[in-house]
Amino acid sequence: MTQKFHHLINSLDQAMTQNDNETIQTILANASAAEVARVIESLPQKERLALWPMVPTALYGKILLELHPELRRPLISQTDEDELIASLSTMQMDELADIDSDLPITVISAMVQAMDSQRRERYEQVKHYPDETAGGLMDVDITAVRADVSIKAALRYLRRLRQREGTLPDHLDSLMVVDRNNILLGIVPLSQLVSNELDLSVRQVMLTEVTSFTPFTPDTVVAQVFKDKDLISAPVVDEQHKLIGRITVDDVIDVIQEEADKEVFSRAGLNNHPDMFAPVLQSSARRAIWLGINLLTAFLAAWVIDLFEASIEKIVALAVLMPVVASMGGVAGSQTLTMVTRGLALNQVNSKNMLKLIGHEFSIGLLNGMLWAAIVAIIAFQWFGDWQLGLVFGSAMIIVLLAGVLAGTTIPPLLRKMGVDPALAGGVVLTTVTDVVGFFAFLGLATIVIL
Amino acid sequence: MTQKFHHLINSLDQAMTQNDNETIQTILANASAAEVARVIESLPQKERLALWPMVPTALYGKILLELHPELRRPLISQTDEDELIASLSTMQMDELADIDSDLPITVISAMVQAMDSQRRERYEQVKHYPDETAGGLMDVDITAVRADVSIKAALRYLRRLRQREGTLPDHLDSLMVVDRNNILLGIVPLSQLVSNELDLSVRQVMLTEVTSFTPFTPDTVVAQVFKDKDLISAPVVDEQHKLIGRITVDDVIDVIQEEADKEVFSRAGLNNHPDMFAPVLQSSARRAIWLGINLLTAFLAAWVIDLFEASIEKIVALAVLMPVVASMGGVAGSQTLTMVTRGLALNQVNSKNMLKLIGHEFSIGLLNGMLWAAIVAIIAFQWFGDWQLGLVFGSAMIIVLLAGVLAGTTIPPLLRKMGVDPALAGGVVLTTVTDVVGFFAFLGLATIVIL
Repeated sequence: MTQKFHHLINSLDQAMTQNDNETIQTILANASAAEVARVIESLPQKERLALWPMVPTALYGKILLELHPELRRPLISQTDEDELIASLSTMQMDELADIDSDLPITVISAMVQAMDSQRRERYEQVKHYPDETAGGLMDVDITAVRADVSIKAALRYLRRLRQREGTLPDHLDSLMVVDRNNILLGIVPLSQLVSNELDLSVRQVMLTEVTSFTPFTPDTVVAQVFKDKDLISAPVVDEQHKLIGRITVDDVIDVIQEEADKEVFSRAGLNNHPDMFAPVLQSSARRAIWLGINLLTAFLAAWVIDLFEASIEKIVALAVLMPVVASMGGVAGSQTLTMVTRGLALNQVNSKNMLKLIGHEFSIGLLNGMLWAAIVAIIAFQWFGDWQLGLVFGSAMIIVLLAGVLAGTTIPPLLRKMGVDPALAGGVVLTTVTDVVGFFAFLGLATIVIL
Repeated sequence: MTQKFHHLINSLDQAMTQNDNETIQTILANASAAEVARVIESLPQKERLALWPMVPTALYGKILLELHPELRRPLISQTDEDELIASLSTMQMDELADIDSDLPITVISAMVQAMDSQRRERYEQVKHYPDETAGGLMDVDITAVRADVSIKAALRYLRRLRQREGTLPDHLDSLMVVDRNNILLGIVPLSQLVSNELDLSVRQVMLTEVTSFTPFTPDTVVAQVFKDKDLISAPVVDEQHKLIGRITVDDVIDVIQEEADKEVFSRAGLNNHPDMFAPVLQSSARRAIWLGINLLTAFLAAWVIDLFEASIEKIVALAVLMPVVASMGGVAGSQTLTMVTRGLALNQVNSKNMLKLIGHEFSIGLLNGMLWAAIVAIIAFQWFGDWQLGLVFGSAMIIVLLAGVLAGTTIPPLLRKMGVDPALAGGVVLTTVTDVVGFFAFLGLATIVIL
């Protein structure tokens, strides 16, 4: 993390403990919207609400955009509606559409009232598409030119546009080229405009092999393509290949980051609720769900153990060693699970190489199984002086490691077929398998061999 | 994932099973470097080497760049050196510097020989900085102009440059503005050049508030700043604020993706080795390390159980229920751990709010503890008809859930202070704590209360 931000946090904390509002306001005035958003996220609820009124009202919109949705509403409800509207009315339509579900209806209507017909039309257009699509990502404020105009004319147009609007769209790296029916013909990078002779026509310098998206393309696909092709911006077109919007790389970066966070949080059963200071009751309820699911699987394992009550009564050492077997199976399995889940997401795991993958993982599991079987067998023998126990312990270790890697390889594709996110449910299903197999193998073998 | 890529995989697989090399080559010729790289990663070793010779030699460089480092060497060793050199010599210096550690020294020297003095100098410059820094990310092929020239002159310069080089640098969205000593004065977005009057001077339209980086800035910091400020490109300057390079957003996206992957793989103890088909022995050895660490912690837990052998002998139900206690503690703990680890990475967890955070997590742990304590107590009573056992089971549940959330909150900062990556080691340390506490609390209480 940047030193600058660290300094920001510290000086702000100092000013807040001293209730030095003046200093607080100057600090916030010199921070970027993203920085302020991260500061707010790091504060407990009460302090958030205390800090919010001291944020420069002009930044309201950008900050709300940067904040995780679940943090927006409480702040918005604390905000003077007129100031909110004033700040929001400067936002791009795609940005506004990202947060408007958290805005009071009175604010929305007031803003729509204030929009000129053109902006209102654009807004309707963006609203039309879900957030997780190219249509939700796109900005509808597009700069397009006709193919037959000269570079000179295109440059003149840009100058006029800038004089009229006072500014040009963000990240304007290229112009869209359309025909009279607004059908996309190609794009001209500004670098082409500035580096070619002025009397050439746009058609002569435009790129016709353009990567474009349809509005309902999932945002994750958009992100993948931006990554693969190193795009800065890309047009969005409808079925008739009419130009309707433009996606820029900064929005794509947010998608990539969100996907990464989602994965990490899903694995922990947090289901993408990263607010550290969400109300206790709310947080507890959310986490309880995952704990409940885990309890069911844990009792399933307990039930397996219960089957061998008699054996444990005779050899208590079984109770001592059985968690070791289960946990080793869980670890070996989750290594495979993680790799295969990622491979699925990148389409590198498919029906074609599945069998080879299973074979590959099986050999790895077998090798590690034999290695650790030998080690734990010796330990068990040293500990309890019973070579049969060591033998059983080692054999169970091989079995559970094989079960782990096989489950780790097969569970993600199966979950996906069932329409369940492997990153979310994979871990639970896996440990259920490894626990049950581990306990069953170890206690079962012991019952047969020793008793 | 894109339909297109899915189709690519299938048609390629078909052609490979039919050994239809002609079709394979046409398919590969029409795919992007990134797509070919992902195909190669999805193939077992043997098929990789079989496919490689059919890849268009012109793409060699780009593909090697896209491939995970551990996949490069085997392919490079299979490649004709002259073709390799021919393909690599078209790459940007920063790209070349990213992969040259995997290239045979003969290739490197041959390439350096072939470079003109300017390119060689640039190459030396980039080599000078580690990969994980702004210096390693930057491209040294910069387009800069003087502040006192007119926009007209700047545009003329760009046209000349393009005529000379045949092309302009990638992602040229702005020109760097320097003085005669190459000190950075500001930048001019191309959108400014094309939208202002031609007789204005560059100084009049350049932006002077520029986000710049020093060459040793960590790449993760660069990524964070690019995200926060929605940058497309940014200059890199030395101590004297001399312009030495330029970072573009496409390299930053790769950093963001790598960091995300690293985190997920670290958590599974895979330590950023994503090759699904790495040689079995290699993979086994890598994963064995993590299994070994886990074995130690598992035996620690076993040792705790062993302390209460006598109690288990009398009440076998203890052996049945104890894994449930431990696993619930582990889940509750890892939920907190994940949240705090992420908070640390974003600098949202710090000495200022640590205490508040602990209090917050404690209340969550307590609430869920009491909830599940009640539930499991009833289950245990129903199952074994022993209200004392239910009481002990429930109390242990509260204790282990509290231990879990407290460990989850405190372990990541501690590990970080010790210079250990919480994403890598956090999980093991946590489950060690929850297992030990869980078994100790449950079996200990049982010994006191019931026996």
